[in-house]
Amino acid sequence: MEQNDIRKLLQSVADGSVSVDDAVLHIKAEPFAELGYAKPDCHRGVRQGVPEVIYGEGKTTEQIIGITKALIDHGQKTVLITRLDKDKAEAVNREVVLDYHEMGHIAVAGEMPKERKGKIVIATGGTSDMPVAEEAAVTAEALGNNVVRLYDVGVAGIHRLLSHTGDIMSARAVIAIAGMEGALASVIGGLADCPVIAVPTSVGYGAAFGGVAALLSMLNSCASGVSVVNIDNGFGAAYQASMINKMGD
Amino acid sequence: MEQNDIRKLLQSVADGSVSVDDAVLHIKAEPFAELGYAKPDCHRGVRQGVPEVIYGEGKTTEQIIGITKALIDHGQKTVLITRLDKDKAEAVNREVVLDYHEMGHIAVAGEMPKERKGKIVIATGGTSDMPVAEEAAVTAEALGNNVVRLYDVGVAGIHRLLSHTGDIMSARAVIAIAGMEGALASVIGGLADCPVIAVPTSVGYGAAFGGVAALLSMLNSCASGVSVVNIDNGFGAAYQASMINKMGD
Amino acid sequence: MEQNDIRKLLQSVADGSVSVDDAVLHIKAEPFAELGYAKPDCHRGVRQGVPEVIYGEGKTTEQIIGITKALIDHGQKTVLITRLDKDKAEAVNREVVLDYHEMGHIAVAGEMPKERKGKIVIATGGTSDMPVAEEAAVTAEALGNNVVRLYDVGVAGIHRLLSHTGDIMSARAVIAIAGMEGALASVIGGLADCPVIAVPTSVGYGAAFGGVAALLSMLNSCASGVSVVNIDNGFGAAYQASMINKMGD
Amino acid sequence: MEQNDIRKLLQSVADGSVSVDDAVLHIKAEPFAELGYAKPDCHRGVRQGVPEVIYGEGKTTEQIIGITKALIDHGQKTVLITRLDKDKAEAVNREVVLDYHEMGHIAVAGEMPKERKGKIVIATGGTSDMPVAEEAAVTAEALGNNVVRLYDVGVAGIHRLLSHTGDIMSARAVIAIAGMEGALASVIGGLADCPVIAVPTSVGYGAAFGGVAALLSMLNSCASGVSVVNIDNGFGAAYQASMINKMGD
Amino acid sequence: MEQNDIRKLLQSVADGSVSVDDAVLHIKAEPFAELGYAKPDCHRGVRQGVPEVIYGEGKTTEQIIGITKALIDHGQKTVLITRLDKDKAEAVNREVVLDYHEMGHIAVAGEMPKERKGKIVIATGGTSDMPVAEEAAVTAEALGNNVVRLYDVGVAGIHRLLSHTGDIMSARAVIAIAGMEGALASVIGGLADCPVIAVPTSVGYGAAFGGVAALLSMLNSCASGVSVVNIDNGFGAAYQASMINKMGD
Amino acid sequence: MEQNDIRKLLQSVADGSVSVDDAVLHIKAEPFAELGYAKPDCHRGVRQGVPEVIYGEGKTTEQIIGITKALIDHGQKTVLITRLDKDKAEAVNREVVLDYHEMGHIAVAGEMPKERKGKIVIATGGTSDMPVAEEAAVTAEALGNNVVRLYDVGVAGIHRLLSHTGDIMSARAVIAIAGMEGALASVIGGLADCPVIAVPTSVGYGAAFGGVAALLSMLNSCASGVSVVNIDNGFGAAYQASMINKMGD
Amino acid sequence: MEQNDIRKLLQSVADGSVSVDDAVLHIKAEPFAELGYAKPDCHRGVRQGVPEVIYGEGKTTEQIIGITKALIDHGQKTVLITRLDKDKAEAVNREVVLDYHEMGHIAVAGEMPKERKGKIVIATGGTSDMPVAEEAAVTAEALGNNVVRLYDVGVAGIHRLLSHTGDIMSARAVIAIAGMEGALASVIGGLADCPVIAVPTSVGYGAAFGGVAALLSMLNSCASGVSVVNIDNGFGAAYQASMINKMGD
Amino acid sequence: MEQNDIRKLLQSVADGSVSVDDAVLHIKAEPFAELGYAKPDCHRGVRQGVPEVIYGEGKTTEQIIGITKALIDHGQKTVLITRLDKDKAEAVNREVVLDYHEMGHIAVAGEMPKERKGKIVIATGGTSDMPVAEEAAVTAEALGNNVVRLYDVGVAGIHRLLSHTGDIMSARAVIAIAGMEGALASVIGGLADCPVIAVPTSVGYGAAFGGVAALLSMLNSCASGVSVVNIDNGFGAAYQASMINKMGD
Repeated sequence: MEQNDIRKLLQSVADGSVSVDDAVLHIKAEPFAELGYAKPDCHRGVRQGVPEVIYGEGKTTEQIIGITKALIDHGQKTVLITRLDKDKAEAVNREVVLDYHEMGHIAVAGEMPKERKGKIVIATGGTSDMPVAEEAAVTAEALGNNVVRLYDVGVAGIHRLLSHTGDIMSARAVIAIAGMEGALASVIGGLADCPVIAVPTSVGYGAAFGGVAALLSMLNSCASGVSVVNIDNGFGAAYQASMINKMGD
Repeated sequence: MEQNDIRKLLQSVADGSVSVDDAVLHIKAEPFAELGYAKPDCHRGVRQGVPEVIYGEGKTTEQIIGITKALIDHGQKTVLITRLDKDKAEAVNREVVLDYHEMGHIAVAGEMPKERKGKIVIATGGTSDMPVAEEAAVTAEALGNNVVRLYDVGVAGIHRLLSHTGDIMSARAVIAIAGMEGALASVIGGLADCPVIAVPTSVGYGAAFGGVAALLSMLNSCASGVSVVNIDNGFGAAYQASMINKMGD
Repeated sequence: MEQNDIRKLLQSVADGSVSVDDAVLHIKAEPFAELGYAKPDCHRGVRQGVPEVIYGEGKTTEQIIGITKALIDHGQKTVLITRLDKDKAEAVNREVVLDYHEMGHIAVAGEMPKERKGKIVIATGGTSDMPVAEEAAVTAEALGNNVVRLYDVGVAGIHRLLSHTGDIMSARAVIAIAGMEGALASVIGGLADCPVIAVPTSVGYGAAFGGVAALLSMLNSCASGVSVVNIDNGFGAAYQASMINKMGD
Repeated sequence: MEQNDIRKLLQSVADGSVSVDDAVLHIKAEPFAELGYAKPDCHRGVRQGVPEVIYGEGKTTEQIIGITKALIDHGQKTVLITRLDKDKAEAVNREVVLDYHEMGHIAVAGEMPKERKGKIVIATGGTSDMPVAEEAAVTAEALGNNVVRLYDVGVAGIHRLLSHTGDIMSARAVIAIAGMEGALASVIGGLADCPVIAVPTSVGYGAAFGGVAALLSMLNSCASGVSVVNIDNGFGAAYQASMINKMGD
Repeated sequence: MEQNDIRKLLQSVADGSVSVDDAVLHIKAEPFAELGYAKPDCHRGVRQGVPEVIYGEGKTTEQIIGITKALIDHGQKTVLITRLDKDKAEAVNREVVLDYHEMGHIAVAGEMPKERKGKIVIATGGTSDMPVAEEAAVTAEALGNNVVRLYDVGVAGIHRLLSHTGDIMSARAVIAIAGMEGALASVIGGLADCPVIAVPTSVGYGAAFGGVAALLSMLNSCASGVSVVNIDNGFGAAYQASMINKMGD
Repeated sequence: MEQNDIRKLLQSVADGSVSVDDAVLHIKAEPFAELGYAKPDCHRGVRQGVPEVIYGEGKTTEQIIGITKALIDHGQKTVLITRLDKDKAEAVNREVVLDYHEMGHIAVAGEMPKERKGKIVIATGGTSDMPVAEEAAVTAEALGNNVVRLYDVGVAGIHRLLSHTGDIMSARAVIAIAGMEGALASVIGGLADCPVIAVPTSVGYGAAFGGVAALLSMLNSCASGVSVVNIDNGFGAAYQASMINKMGD
Repeated sequence: MEQNDIRKLLQSVADGSVSVDDAVLHIKAEPFAELGYAKPDCHRGVRQGVPEVIYGEGKTTEQIIGITKALIDHGQKTVLITRLDKDKAEAVNREVVLDYHEMGHIAVAGEMPKERKGKIVIATGGTSDMPVAEEAAVTAEALGNNVVRLYDVGVAGIHRLLSHTGDIMSARAVIAIAGMEGALASVIGGLADCPVIAVPTSVGYGAAFGGVAALLSMLNSCASGVSVVNIDNGFGAAYQASMINKMGD
Repeated sequence: MEQNDIRKLLQSVADGSVSVDDAVLHIKAEPFAELGYAKPDCHRGVRQGVPEVIYGEGKTTEQIIGITKALIDHGQKTVLITRLDKDKAEAVNREVVLDYHEMGHIAVAGEMPKERKGKIVIATGGTSDMPVAEEAAVTAEALGNNVVRLYDVGVAGIHRLLSHTGDIMSARAVIAIAGMEGALASVIGGLADCPVIAVPTSVGYGAAFGGVAALLSMLNSCASGVSVVNIDNGFGAAYQASMINKMGD
């Protein structure tokens, strides 16, 4: 239900076509499915233009199946399930057909969008950042965006990055993914003329503190136009990059 | 032994019906069972109105059985055992009959209270917070309170929470349980007219730091009337909520 | 506006006595004053039973005066202003008469409640915790509660605390305020049969880390029935203690 | 110099109209002014579409004047100077005319853009967040964007925020600014259908840790579509919001 | 009152020479002075062999004077006041004669002990650690111990320390005081055959984090026989060293 | 070799009975065994009165056997091996006979001292702290001290601790072991008239942060006479307590 | 490609022997191998004098084989693979012959340099630091340096270190490796007249925080001439030590 | 005294030309001046090739004058005094002539070396890093090194840095100084073929945490050949860079 729907409902109450109690019930009952253990937000596609996504970690196989079915029953065409390990994916797949991407620990139920638009560049500092990058890439594709992958372009050999300046300059959004010191985001931030969304990864050891070094580095980027999401949050970066990319249409 | 008991004992000493040495012995010997590895507080029901609870983590099966029996021998009717994993629960069950709740990792020896009073609302931000919520719920029920469960009402789809405003407004205490950014506590804190006890959970990843993000969020709640317990401490929240709920009788 | 008011408004729309546009306007316009720099919540007394409080830190004198007047204009009888330093208090006092409590950096505009109820005990570990304790005490009194002050009863000389067991046993809520290692909360938590709200203070040096040591200590209290508010948050503790105390009436 | 310029330069070398040494010199000499203590990036307007901005903190008055003049000499029309305290602003103003905004500690040399486009909403949790919000607002306006200010709409009185749903739903980018627990970002993130850039502020005390609580909260937002910039970084949020807003033209 | 006193009191109650109410009163009234803002522990000399000490920080001049007088009135001969800045010391001195040691920010009211026993070595890594060292030295002397000062014997020039091996080998307790990396404690711990009490200081900058680096270093000492007190806590180290030193008599 | 030995060696050089090269060799060669992977300090018994102890963690079975044999070969009668898990203990036992204490993960090679002196009290907050307590107890006994165990006397039921005041008052050193909030150290510190060595344990969860909460609590103890060792360092506490206890002979 | 190569290429463009498009292609295509998942830097030997090294952690066996082969195909003689666990090493070995060093988790493909120069001393605080030390030692040897190993020379028995003063005084670079309190770096820093590179290790427990205590200790070394690399980063220390050692030729 | 001196002394004892007591005295008395509050290390020039440096912070004017004079009296030609604020510098200057460098808060007593060798490049990310850079530059010059300053070459405009590749490629050591995200060290580390010493600075705000973000970034550099010193430690970096630079002679 959007704002306009509320106004319409009030008018129906005013002209007597809807009773007060029904109106209260309607506002309360509609926008999510009540599963007891979960309340999937069926309202989100209308409200935010992107349908509900399932965060798989910490949910049982039964819960994931239940939520996926509920969303499909409410008419959602593509259901993304993130942070899903291989075993659970196989178990879910017995009930709901999944397209599972092992590197990114992400699955898609339903169909992928037929058309993809614009251009999102996904760059990583190293090979070890690929699981996060693939979570981002599959998410972006599932949301209908064209994706260019630039993997292992970390700043220790800056000529590798500079050789791809063309891709970076022509993107509508860049997702910069790096662990260790996370310097990639700053260098890309100084080259790109579109928003850069930085994703620190937990790649590294010792004083990398599971991604904290990269996170702080990215938050303090001396380049403007860089914002940051949580450590290893490829999904979140792709979600926002998709919003930005589509604004350019 | 309460203050009055001490005064009575002193009077018995004064009138000669109790000797000095017996009095000293009595004060020392009574209020806990001496098991060597543990000193269960049999005094607590008298002193605080709630009997001793066993924290299962880090205790051996033998120790848990020993303490449970000691408490039952001292007349305690309901013995709660928290943080008890399934394997230990089964081992204990061979010696002392347990009602084990797997989701909340909590067991009850003895009988549950027949009567339940008042109303405690237990709300969670997501499905993954359920283990903590169930620890709280079973504790609250074992202490004789009515419980209403509102699971998966996180603020990202705030209409889910607002649709339950009635429950929140009529509670005597609300337990707000959330991981990630823990914003649920603040929003409920702004709606409720009763004390809100916030429980940060270790749900999340990266900069959630095992519940620290939610903990800090809740400690800094811009809503008044919110206090906080330790990360994942469903038991502690329910214990205090029970104290508050019973004050309303 | 409470739930019932919304239902009444909808019925007025239904019976034609209120137009749809007026209803929308009413819902939007009423519950807070729009000052541009602030939106004081005039709705809060109805919704939560306690009127809006002004957090003085980071606000200019002009803003404080403006918000105070707006609240009084909306009919609020007692306006608490916390975290107000002496200079600002004097400046505000020229426009709105204040009763300023220097130790607690807290002021009251309007009148204090005539009647006080129940019993809240406020205990501190040391003399240096008094600013936080007085913020709590004045808040509790302004909200209509009887307050008993037990200052400097830290656990290093535990006989000082034990000599006040009577007060603690007869309270409806205890506020335990301590810096350094914050052990006071645990010891009181083991003695009291009512909720204990612990307030860590920034008293201490070195590894006290501005109250973090006491905060962690209180969050990990081995005593049940203890919840915690932010470092130095005397106001927040008193607010919740007041809710609890009044439940006992 | 952009990629195309480099290709042109190479062609000029190829056709003999530019010598090899001149080409090397040209690439090295052009894109920044060499002041010894600073190398302002005159190249940035061409490369990134937004001219160089001066970060005032830690620079002497003489340095700020020198850099400002160098940028104006290179043809930059609007020069933003952030983190500039009042005393320095007055000193600089004697040499270069500034439009100084005291609340946001930000100054503009040269002229503001005549035309403003699109819609950026800037929302704050409280009145005390205004300095950061004004830094963002002036930046956004200086970069040619329309700005809507929604101040003091924190989640403790969520009706204040909900009454502005219309503004949030119609924005191209929302900047959510909050200290304390920073829950505002999550709630707005759940309402908006455009990118939300969250700015934690250092407003708060105790366990707010100078903005860390809000920062962690925002990084862990359960709402999708939220990215985060550094604590108190109003400028950075506005810079990226401007990039996004202009993509919608 | 010690345990024996309690037994005697009970016997007096038993033989009727003391009434029950008087006994209760006696237990409650005696062991501390009730000043409202403070409860100085007059009982401590009996219980712990060392009289009450006043922690000056965060107390007003009036409070310090009041507590000092109360202790002297209860018969305490030497009153130590720690963390006392020069201005307050002068103000207090007008009411109670003080011997003030500026380097250590510590004052003595009453008389110093006539006899000093044993040998405590106080060693520092550098000259900048002297304020903490002098707090320790004056405390140790006020408690009746002989003190040997070894200042600026940090490990970067280890020959300076090794040249004093004799002093270290003949001490009954060594207080090792160092900031920065705090390595002094480990090296002394490997040389001494008596307990070493390590005091980290806040000397240093950057990643010294106000003494945290030295604190962690000392807690992880690879030498056995080293224990640690709070950052800059010269008093605490001297207090325990005095207990140890006297055990050797 | 002690100082006196060096002087004697120099005199032998002076009177020609030892050549210069032999003297240099002697100083270098004697005080440790050279095993390549380790240099066990055979000198320590002479220098510090307590023989070398083996820290088992991170060493291979072969290394532990090698070092143990080297120490025994150099005449050491009792060899303590700490942090030794059960599997390694069994493997070592095949080569060197061990007396293994599973609860404390500690083994003794050689013989225990026949005579034990003085009195060390080892108190724990809870049953779960026993592994650390037993590491301390076995160490203290192996070093020739009498030990009194007071387990599960945490402050949440303070009568349990107070009932043992006699033991605490008559000890020469108390080791206070606690996890969670670690308040035990402060309360004992206020009761005892001997040095208290506090050992924080990693018992607890959430904001206990693996013992950090207890560590900070103990470092900030409001009681004087308390010093602290590393988290879970039962060995270190017993080592220093032994030094103190023996000073009382 | 080095600077001179670029100048030559430009001249070829100028004299027409190379076309513009070929020049662009050449700059882009040459300096790294494009494997999709990785871009090994074949350029590095020319640019930095040390060939590319493979960081094994987080890479699949297939990726490691692929990168190793690519480097060998580009003519690299010695390929170091760090952080390689035993299982992966065996799997890789089936495709590319490896010399695997289990203690240091490091492998060498190709041949080791025939000649070794200068002198690098590698010292450790304890036996448990050997895995890091061996990573450093094998790296240094693979880069053509002579290595002297001084293991288990921690400061708790400082005579062990002092007996090796000769080695330390004659080195061109010292790598000081220690966990726990990391004091070794400071003591060596005070003895050596060459650069000391300190490596904190994750050896220790409790407040060692996985190497943080040693890291902070080393960063705050009171000795000059000490710099620090990441926790457990034996490779990085050896790499820089090799650069320094070779400067002495 | 070096090793050889000790051997000579022993031989003098052997041939009777020096008595045992004199030898003991000589070893003890020579290598540092005993000032009571300080023991300046006159031995260091012989032992480490660089004379003693005075760390000014936390020392009184009198102490600085005393130590400077003692060093000059022992024949030291150049005395560096770091971390010296302007007021103290002026006060010292009245007793000992100083050449004071205000930007770097560093002073030189005595004469600067006449000859400078090799090449050290000092690069900064921004203008605000200049105080640290100048501390490094003056130190390096005082130790006899040629210095090239490259200020404000941060990675947000990477062409500024790349235009100085020649300087970086020809240096014997590079000092990379940066605050905020500290990415400069990694990019330079990937370009240089000599050791890079990284200095994090406290420049920045919010999540820069006074230099921690840059420190972690530099410790986790993906470039090899980078080591790190303490935050703002320009002196330490220059000291080690000087050692390295001179090795190249």
